[in-house]
Amino acid sequence: MIILGIDPGSRHTGYGVVRHDGGQQHLVEYGVLHLDATDDHELRLKQIYDRLTKVIERCLPDECAIEMPVYGRNPQSMLKLGRAQAAAMLAVLNRQIPVTQYTPKEVKKSVTGNGNASKEQVWFMVRSILTITDDDPRLGLDASDALATALCHAHRQSRGGRTQTYKDWSAFLRENPDRIS
Amino acid sequence: MIILGIDPGSRHTGYGVVRHDGGQQHLVEYGVLHLDATDDHELRLKQIYDRLTKVIERCLPDECAIEMPVYGRNPQSMLKLGRAQAAAMLAVLNRQIPVTQYTPKEVKKSVTGNGNASKEQVWFMVRSILTITDDDPRLGLDASDALATALCHAHRQSRGGRTQTYKDWSAFLRENPDRIS
Repeated sequence: MIILGIDPGSRHTGYGVVRHDGGQQHLVEYGVLHLDATDDHELRLKQIYDRLTKVIERCLPDECAIEMPVYGRNPQSMLKLGRAQAAAMLAVLNRQIPVTQYTPKEVKKSVTGNGNASKEQVWFMVRSILTITDDDPRLGLDASDALATALCHAHRQSRGGRTQTYKDWSAFLRENPDRIS
Repeated sequence: MIILGIDPGSRHTGYGVVRHDGGQQHLVEYGVLHLDATDDHELRLKQIYDRLTKVIERCLPDECAIEMPVYGRNPQSMLKLGRAQAAAMLAVLNRQIPVTQYTPKEVKKSVTGNGNASKEQVWFMVRSILTITDDDPRLGLDASDALATALCHAHRQSRGGRTQTYKDWSAFLRENPDRIS
């Protein structure tokens, strides 16, 4: 199974693709979409959408896991974060790929054993699990968070404890006929 | 010219389509997408995206105007609003339709002459400008805000004072070659 992990942000959106085979995880690719703060908001959203769509077309993930912080103190930051989250989510949903949301705490706990681990600790464990060599300077903290989200989803799959997700609206309605009003 | 106005919200997203001919505005259609609060967030985003895409395919708007509040006090509400805004914006941008954002104040001032007008005053003026009959109970406040946004864009077009927008990323780069890093 190929898993796409995404860590959406209005300035930097990290992504990481992992192959999950027989309890083992292998690195496929990772990267960070750097978005120019001076660009219009709609251009940034379109960039997140278009560039993630290209990653999906290239890597053909079976499932997607998104790290979704839902709490914050600054209303303006949360507005921008919400827009970035939606752009990433729609790129995945429009390709009919099931998406599962994870909180930052869930991701950290899954990869390091500690829900309050630092980004650097996550970075260290991701490199260790996926045997990424020390001389690869491309793996920044945004990309390692995205890979950690993909690994978190892989661990959940191994334990069979995945949250129910739906490919699209019609799949949801098929499973929940009583929810049609 | 056909103008699609959108008032995005995480629970109710209003839309209104107006034909702008020779300084006159005529009603094409309007409606509100009611989203179930109990649905998953991703399903709500997909609904906004898919249902607005259907409106676009049916009415073939030339341009789009979106009412975009960017200030608020509650971080969680702003996160949800940001997601709804992005879903609406991407439905439009993915059909290569130029989109212009307006603040609630700009919309109110354009339609009523007062940037601090109430939603009810906007509702009254929209019905008057578009000669919507009093016995049409479908025109709620969300739909009237969306129609007001379309009217605001029409007024700006008449005065030739529209803010620069771009159809897509490549159009932006053609106009701004110095912004390529």
